[in-house]
Amino acid sequence: MAYTVGEIARALGADCAGEIDIAISRASEPALAGPEDLALAMSPAYAEGLAKGQAVAAMVWPGADWQELGLRAAIFAPRGRLAMAGLSAMMDAGPQIAPGVHPMSVVDPSAVIGANPAIGPFVTIGAGVVIGANARIASQVSISEGAQIGADALICQGARIGARVRIGDRFICQPGAVIGSDGFSFVTPEKSGVEEIRQTLGQREEIKAQSWTRIHSLGSVSIGDDVEIGANACIDRGTIRDTTIGSGTKLDNLVHIGHNVQVGQDTLLCGQVGVAGSSKIGSRVVLAGQCGVNDNIFIADDVICGGATKVFTNVPAGRVMLGYPAVKMEQHIEMQKALRRLPRMAARLTELEKKFSEPS
Amino acid sequence: MAYTVGEIARALGADCAGEIDIAISRASEPALAGPEDLALAMSPAYAEGLAKGQAVAAMVWPGADWQELGLRAAIFAPRGRLAMAGLSAMMDAGPQIAPGVHPMSVVDPSAVIGANPAIGPFVTIGAGVVIGANARIASQVSISEGAQIGADALICQGARIGARVRIGDRFICQPGAVIGSDGFSFVTPEKSGVEEIRQTLGQREEIKAQSWTRIHSLGSVSIGDDVEIGANACIDRGTIRDTTIGSGTKLDNLVHIGHNVQVGQDTLLCGQVGVAGSSKIGSRVVLAGQCGVNDNIFIADDVICGGATKVFTNVPAGRVMLGYPAVKMEQHIEMQKALRRLPRMAARLTELEKKFSEPS
Amino acid sequence: MAYTVGEIARALGADCAGEIDIAISRASEPALAGPEDLALAMSPAYAEGLAKGQAVAAMVWPGADWQELGLRAAIFAPRGRLAMAGLSAMMDAGPQIAPGVHPMSVVDPSAVIGANPAIGPFVTIGAGVVIGANARIASQVSISEGAQIGADALICQGARIGARVRIGDRFICQPGAVIGSDGFSFVTPEKSGVEEIRQTLGQREEIKAQSWTRIHSLGSVSIGDDVEIGANACIDRGTIRDTTIGSGTKLDNLVHIGHNVQVGQDTLLCGQVGVAGSSKIGSRVVLAGQCGVNDNIFIADDVICGGATKVFTNVPAGRVMLGYPAVKMEQHIEMQKALRRLPRMAARLTELEKKFSEPS
Repeated sequence: MAYTVGEIARALGADCAGEIDIAISRASEPALAGPEDLALAMSPAYAEGLAKGQAVAAMVWPGADWQELGLRAAIFAPRGRLAMAGLSAMMDAGPQIAPGVHPMSVVDPSAVIGANPAIGPFVTIGAGVVIGANARIASQVSISEGAQIGADALICQGARIGARVRIGDRFICQPGAVIGSDGFSFVTPEKSGVEEIRQTLGQREEIKAQSWTRIHSLGSVSIGDDVEIGANACIDRGTIRDTTIGSGTKLDNLVHIGHNVQVGQDTLLCGQVGVAGSSKIGSRVVLAGQCGVNDNIFIADDVICGGATKVFTNVPAGRVMLGYPAVKMEQHIEMQKALRRLPRMAARLTELEKKFSEPS
Repeated sequence: MAYTVGEIARALGADCAGEIDIAISRASEPALAGPEDLALAMSPAYAEGLAKGQAVAAMVWPGADWQELGLRAAIFAPRGRLAMAGLSAMMDAGPQIAPGVHPMSVVDPSAVIGANPAIGPFVTIGAGVVIGANARIASQVSISEGAQIGADALICQGARIGARVRIGDRFICQPGAVIGSDGFSFVTPEKSGVEEIRQTLGQREEIKAQSWTRIHSLGSVSIGDDVEIGANACIDRGTIRDTTIGSGTKLDNLVHIGHNVQVGQDTLLCGQVGVAGSSKIGSRVVLAGQCGVNDNIFIADDVICGGATKVFTNVPAGRVMLGYPAVKMEQHIEMQKALRRLPRMAARLTELEKKFSEPS
Repeated sequence: MAYTVGEIARALGADCAGEIDIAISRASEPALAGPEDLALAMSPAYAEGLAKGQAVAAMVWPGADWQELGLRAAIFAPRGRLAMAGLSAMMDAGPQIAPGVHPMSVVDPSAVIGANPAIGPFVTIGAGVVIGANARIASQVSISEGAQIGADALICQGARIGARVRIGDRFICQPGAVIGSDGFSFVTPEKSGVEEIRQTLGQREEIKAQSWTRIHSLGSVSIGDDVEIGANACIDRGTIRDTTIGSGTKLDNLVHIGHNVQVGQDTLLCGQVGVAGSSKIGSRVVLAGQCGVNDNIFIADDVICGGATKVFTNVPAGRVMLGYPAVKMEQHIEMQKALRRLPRMAARLTELEKKFSEPS
């Protein structure tokens, strides 16, 4: 994974200057960089760090005086994090999985596996599974009957791909993720308390003891291209139709997607987000960590929800939300300011009442 | 899994009409249904979908004019979701696990496995384990020493059943669930900050640097009949007694149950619910997604908590709760309405004070 | 695991009295205790339970009249939970993992495993892994290339230790935990909506359709000594430097630690806590269940956050926090009290306005 400064700049489409033949073996924080590292100093705040470290080459901000910074070569990154994306892709060795299919795996003879696979030990691949070319499947993964996975997949240790799940190209699945668990769908013989309070908003007539009968999940999960699923995240299968995740969408660790949910394209669902059954999330939505989405609602395109926002009702396109229950971010900030002043305000009201009732 | 319309109606105890010998191979949404599908049109809202699809048979609402809807056969479902439960159970092929015990599993010779098992590859079953008849155990599951599991269990890929866990009949465990992890229980040599603020509600005298000593979990987990545990959910073992989950209770994905917790019967704990150590949840309770329950409290029977409710104190039977901290749902709605008007109300108070202080 | 009363008292450094040669085979709750059990009655509240059970020996509170309680031997525990820690460690048989390396495991020839290992079936250990003495590694665990683990580790079923992760001595890892998943780090070609609203706090100029490019995680995870990680918890690797967890820190089930996060020493992160990328948590911090920490912030030493606290900004050392957004616990309690009275207060304000506007 060694490249010259010039090769890196060319791959990133970035300008460079100085001794561009210097060889780079890894990327480092400026203060910790050794002489073979490319220091990442994409803003002037890192100049001091550069002086502490031993880097002779760095990725710097546009217009940086690289020679003044003590460097012998520099790459100019107009948008630092974007350059970081390209650089990190070049430098990532990826997981070590030996080419071929490990003899201690169990692959059904009817499974069709594309060219150039690397499948680790203790993997199970069920009947009728179809996997595209260049698949990297780490140890202890299970892929159940009838699942279809596109080209260039990376599926990490212990991930579970359920029966008949369909996944596009360039899929990345972190360890322990479960795709295609059964939906959480139960019904009582007569109207349940939950059904009742959805109508009455909290009033209950009469409480009956009832047990739950399971609604089986006959659907599966459909996932587009370029999707990434985080560690120990869970996506339930649909009841009749598939639960769907659009192309370009990324799910972080421990995210929960209920049955029948439809998620659009290029959407980010951050750590521990939960989406209850049958809700629909648009494209380019961002739900920050620990957001929750009620069942059977619709979050339109380009919505952004701040951390731990709990959404109970539909949200129109492009809105920025915060709070429990979710309101517009500006409104949330204003409400919270007022709430912090509320104890003092209560005292002021009492005082005013007192004054008013006193004989003047 | 093909049945005639008549067979399905009989199994569901439902009325039917028309050409009841039509064969059905699967259930579908009305608009997507093919000629061999049973369209699910359990309310008049689906009539339009029926016209778009090609179904000749459907499950319809009571009193529907099925011939007018273009159908040749109909099943009448007085309670749609309940009929759906029965139908989905008939149509669910279940996971493909070959009968017998896969040769690439490791089963301790002292384990007793009931009649008719289907145990997949890379499964481990420890010493003294007892499993009832008709067990279906998917690949990569581990069942530790001394665990006891009743008849008709379905345990999905990579689930972990800990040592001495006891489980009743008809258990369903989704992939990756962990039953019997150690409790999170630590103690400092002297009083800790957490112990102090529980008494003072926020005041701290003096902060000492202390390390945590582990309290080991000597208890296990006891689970009744007809329990289902969601994907990647975790149930900790008890300190001395077992953590308990009552019969008929269902846990969704990523639910966390702390040590010593006791959950009653027919209770639903939805996605990402967390219950801290030593709390007690009654029977027929419903905690919606992302609810949290403090340690050492009691939620009585028939309580329903809306999404993301955070419960810090005991809740009496039958109450409907919402909010952080949890209050009665009606009160929460009223409080939130008032909070949204609070910024305006603050301005009104200021104005009134001004008027009052002005010479009239 | 049988000890005499005297042996237990000596191990705990506690006083004892009576027939200290009585043999104890396990610890029990007083009311359920049999004649060979040590009843745990560390406060007078348990006296009644003792009468119901059959214990002849008990661990009791200091000064208890053990003979009056019907006991033949007693151990006096000045700090009950601390005594419980010592006792439970003595009584815990630990998981059954056969000594040696199970033949159905795949261990890379370049891995170095210390003396006296117990490694179960279906485990994978990658190239260059170094593991200290006395390792207990349960079935289906994966330890990837280059990982280093200290002495006396206990790694439970299906845990995932990622490439180049470094861990100290006496590590305990519950089932299904994932250490070293990739960070959730993505960038758009041009400024994203999230970047925009961080500056404007909610206002968006223009919404562009953009896709996300992945920033690979080149760093790993570094973990100190005496750390415990809960079931299905996830710790992401760092982008350039390692994500770090300090010595003595304990993570509960389903905790999520984002990339680049730094956690200090002796900190407790309880069930379902989430810490977003690049934040820093001090030493001796306690985050109760379901707390959330925003990205790029700093929670200083000795902070305690109550259940489900959502922290959006830096928190100074020693502070006790609660709420969403987090405020000081006392302030939160005062605000919530005022909020509960707010609907009534709104009515009072309206009444006062009416009175004021009336001709007096």
